[in-house]
Amino acid sequence: MHREQRQRTQDLLKTKGVEQALFASFNSVKWLTGFTPTLQTGPNFFSGGPPLVWYEDGHFTLIVVDGFTAAAEAFDQEPDGTLVTYLGYTIEQPIAGADHLTTALRQVLGQSKSNGVMGLEERDVPFLLWNVLQVVFEGEIAFEPIDGELEPLRMVKSEEEIAKLRENFALTDLGHAVARQAVAVGKREIDIWTAMHSAIQEKAGSRVPFGNDCVVGHREGNNIGGWPLDHEIRPNDSLIVDLSTILYGYWSDSCATYYPNEPTPQQVAMHKTAAEALDFGISLIKPGAVAKEIDQKVRQFIADAGYPVYPHHTGHGVGVSGHEGPRIVPYNDEVIEEGMVILLEPGIYLPGETGVRLEDAMLVTSNGVEMLTGHDKSLP
Amino acid sequence: MHREQRQRTQDLLKTKGVEQALFASFNSVKWLTGFTPTLQTGPNFFSGGPPLVWYEDGHFTLIVVDGFTAAAEAFDQEPDGTLVTYLGYTIEQPIAGADHLTTALRQVLGQSKSNGVMGLEERDVPFLLWNVLQVVFEGEIAFEPIDGELEPLRMVKSEEEIAKLRENFALTDLGHAVARQAVAVGKREIDIWTAMHSAIQEKAGSRVPFGNDCVVGHREGNNIGGWPLDHEIRPNDSLIVDLSTILYGYWSDSCATYYPNEPTPQQVAMHKTAAEALDFGISLIKPGAVAKEIDQKVRQFIADAGYPVYPHHTGHGVGVSGHEGPRIVPYNDEVIEEGMVILLEPGIYLPGETGVRLEDAMLVTSNGVEMLTGHDKSLP
Repeated sequence: MHREQRQRTQDLLKTKGVEQALFASFNSVKWLTGFTPTLQTGPNFFSGGPPLVWYEDGHFTLIVVDGFTAAAEAFDQEPDGTLVTYLGYTIEQPIAGADHLTTALRQVLGQSKSNGVMGLEERDVPFLLWNVLQVVFEGEIAFEPIDGELEPLRMVKSEEEIAKLRENFALTDLGHAVARQAVAVGKREIDIWTAMHSAIQEKAGSRVPFGNDCVVGHREGNNIGGWPLDHEIRPNDSLIVDLSTILYGYWSDSCATYYPNEPTPQQVAMHKTAAEALDFGISLIKPGAVAKEIDQKVRQFIADAGYPVYPHHTGHGVGVSGHEGPRIVPYNDEVIEEGMVILLEPGIYLPGETGVRLEDAMLVTSNGVEMLTGHDKSLP
Repeated sequence: MHREQRQRTQDLLKTKGVEQALFASFNSVKWLTGFTPTLQTGPNFFSGGPPLVWYEDGHFTLIVVDGFTAAAEAFDQEPDGTLVTYLGYTIEQPIAGADHLTTALRQVLGQSKSNGVMGLEERDVPFLLWNVLQVVFEGEIAFEPIDGELEPLRMVKSEEEIAKLRENFALTDLGHAVARQAVAVGKREIDIWTAMHSAIQEKAGSRVPFGNDCVVGHREGNNIGGWPLDHEIRPNDSLIVDLSTILYGYWSDSCATYYPNEPTPQQVAMHKTAAEALDFGISLIKPGAVAKEIDQKVRQFIADAGYPVYPHHTGHGVGVSGHEGPRIVPYNDEVIEEGMVILLEPGIYLPGETGVRLEDAMLVTSNGVEMLTGHDKSLP
């Protein structure tokens, strides 16, 4: 699992002259190993720090608290992978995850020699662990920050990742089908939300982390996004439903807008413009297209229709994070490549009144795209 | 909000001769400020590191990414508090939260002078930020680890915390009422789970993070705990439902066991023993009682009834974390004090067959306890 990710990483590190590296960012660890810790209730109580990956001589060692053993043990079967766990929960002594983690890291590094330059994710490696490295190598090594270095490698998806994403997008499609049925005057944002989330988890047969937005059009100030609250859906209201599920550590993302009754002529016009803008954007996605040009053209489409231009990105990539490259934004010179997974999500917002956003996901093919979302975004 | 927490912290730091400190642990930051970031889908994409609290001269500065402004801004109204936010999401330039965070930290520290000894949560301060401290103070300061130092201060709850916990325990009570109704042969763990979670969120009118266990008795190997899966409830099965909700950043926790039909004589006997063990444990909780003695007595009660003794703690405290002091475990010499909030949760497990666990929460009063849980734990 995720061998292609590790091969790409190894190739990158070689070109940088880095022969050892410590990864500590949540997304790097997920992407390198396929290990997906639970996250709905925050960090594991008994862990001593973030999950880590130590890289040396073409081999990757995943270090996690023992409470994650079941979730991580498949990695130990990989030819280039080893799993090391350390004691977290116990009733026999005080919880001391950080002590056990530092001991585990020292043991993993026990055979290591200074190899010149060690890569380090400085944003995520706790100072406590950096201390361990200093002691083990007695100052005989140079550290090089490698924060963010894997992000460009993550943009083009492997077949394995695409399979995970396909399964995941089916869940958000289901959520949308439920929302379309459930929207009604007097129901609240949270009611629609729980109906969607229940259906998704019942389909998956397990807990599924769930985002993003479920907001009525009449929200004042910001009716673009936000988590569901107890705002009631009113007559002639709109409801923006922007969903992500996280399956196998990978994010989906898709958006539609629903109406509790026959939409007003203004809502119909806005919805049609958003749908046309989305279709126009999709027609622009192909290998060689430049991100900022796509962004500019879709914004211009909305402006030409006489509407205020949305203040957010036109789109973005998705993977182990819900928001990753390539960003479809005004400054970005990155070029679209085959194998990228891209979201486009133009919207029109009249705060306090109504709003619309429609979003599709697509896999970039050799000459265009294959859609990953299949939800109904039509007017009722 | 949370002024008492900050006063206790200031007093502690003074006794340690620490006049400046950087807090970076999730629980320390929540407890010091009342700021409760969302956590159901993992870390904020655009943050550059963990939320931080800088302490100096009796003043606390909370530093968070601007996406958390609404959730954190109440802190800026505190007489001893200041909120500083830094740029996270933008479409005008690449996401660079870590750069903006380090700039913000440098600005906050701009007026600081070396004050002798600086406290540092080394487990949670990223190496990148420790670097900033080194530069700002030009090596003219000694760092002292203060990891875990706030944990003893967190055990006795303030009135404000108790009010938050009461409101929260009402949500888990609701979850249990739903579970009791919903349990039936053929339903799956995940079905009961989604019914409870939906009811809780619809009552709260917002998203509520939700744990912990929902497991059928016939699970092989471990039928003590785990997140719900698609295991079906069978005839003569049991279902352990152990719930936590997180409200205002504080955890509740309570457990009951349900049966899809008339429980078997064995289940009735086990359930009665667990209930008696719990009541016995509750009778032992009062100021002056020693944690390990309570633990030993409740374990002995189960053993005396002829059952295998549960392998987990007898109980624990709860607050900004779901598992904190005082731990009711075999080694712990800590003494129960008025104002602590304690969970007791004896259980009996026959893996692959059936299991029972019952758990109540209580506030320690001057001469005993006041119950915080009100869920029905009786046999059907």
